Amino acid sequence: MSAAVLFHFPFDPASRTVRLALGEARIEVAETVVRPWEPDCPLIALNPSAMPPVLQIEQGRHRLTLCEASAILGWIEDQQKSPLLLPADPRERAEARRLTAWFERRFSDEVNAVLLHERLEKPLLRLGPPEARALRDGRAALKEHLLMLEGLAGSRDRLAGRHLSQADLIAAAHLSVLDYFGEIAWASWPSLKDWYVKVKSRPSFRPLLSDRFQGLAAAAHYADLDF
Amino acid sequence: MSAAVLFHFPFDPASRTVRLALGEARIEVAETVVRPWEPDCPLIALNPSAMPPVLQIEQGRHRLTLCEASAILGWIEDQQKSPLLLPADPRERAEARRLTAWFERRFSDEVNAVLLHERLEKPLLRLGPPEARALRDGRAALKEHLLMLEGLAGSRDRLAGRHLSQADLIAAAHLSVLDYFGEIAWASWPSLKDWYVKVKSRPSFRPLLSDRFQGLAAAAHYADLDF
Repeated sequence: MSAAVLFHFPFDPASRTVRLALGEARIEVAETVVRPWEPDCPLIALNPSAMPPVLQIEQGRHRLTLCEASAILGWIEDQQKSPLLLPADPRERAEARRLTAWFERRFSDEVNAVLLHERLEKPLLRLGPPEARALRDGRAALKEHLLMLEGLAGSRDRLAGRHLSQADLIAAAHLSVLDYFGEIAWASWPSLKDWYVKVKSRPSFRPLLSDRFQGLAAAAHYADLDF
Repeated sequence: MSAAVLFHFPFDPASRTVRLALGEARIEVAETVVRPWEPDCPLIALNPSAMPPVLQIEQGRHRLTLCEASAILGWIEDQQKSPLLLPADPRERAEARRLTAWFERRFSDEVNAVLLHERLEKPLLRLGPPEARALRDGRAALKEHLLMLEGLAGSRDRLAGRHLSQADLIAAAHLSVLDYFGEIAWASWPSLKDWYVKVKSRPSFRPLLSDRFQGLAAAAHYADLDF
């Protein structure tokens, strides 16, 4: 007998990555939505970085606390009988790991830390209206990265090769948050759009489509599977 | 028959992590030192992020290019018959992954991006003298993180628990670069110093002790195993 609780924030890309991975692995978890910027956030007691996602697993009298997306993804893969998040082929495996690192580092630094800061963190933390210059910089970085992803999506079935991997999940997690805010001009990226339609249609993606951000409706096509 | 070449920059913490891991796994590689800020750096053609470390493996007619530390560490672990970089115990495994993510993200953002930028990147890129304020901020962040690591080192044999793991290697990689520049006041962190002496004495660490930074000698105790 085991029970698991996922502590997550619905618009945190790392939290979304983990929700998608748990869905793909068909691991059922209870969910606790956290607001990591609030002083009484339960993650302060669970994760030294005080950030989501955290997965807590009770197995009999034992409790396992998995902090940070990489620990949760790794644990999920450890439970599998055959490869799920990391393809068996060494080339695709390396590429899935490379792209994961790339989203965690480059994409987070150049797009999320700028564009999501303006669109998401500022309203949540009441830091005032977005700055035009930061929006412009974040959108320019996003465009450059979407161009790279369009190239990958145009030459491969999945982002890391022939098989679905954690690269698809982390990419979909990041892009779906930006998409909620209407930041992705899909018409400019036809191959990436085809890839996104496929990922968005998976059962693992369904819970993300009903996430709602305080005081802001999703972009018109956000929850539309055939946009 | 296989041959491998590691492209690395000796004072890049991610490159050092991988050199330590290859050493622990006793995987012999040829080394090519790169200078990622130079316009003709060979990594521009090998890694989309153009950054070290990159490991290229030739196996017969096949070539596998592993970009980013996480892809190389994952590949090394995939080659093992028994756990090497990630302990078998689920709790230690989760902790090794958490600490790896923590160094890649928090430590890199708050210490390296500030302190190593001033001490290492500025002289390499000829960006002028260090700024006193940035040095102060980076050192304050370092002190806070060393306090946390001192707590871990005081309560565990190794950083993630009872077994050596990639958490020890990534921590030693980061701290050893800062130590070269004389930025670690070891006397203030006795448990961490005991842990560091143990890691530094391992054969995998030996090559790092002879790295030399242009125009700057290492801190007096840098290569001393009994400091």
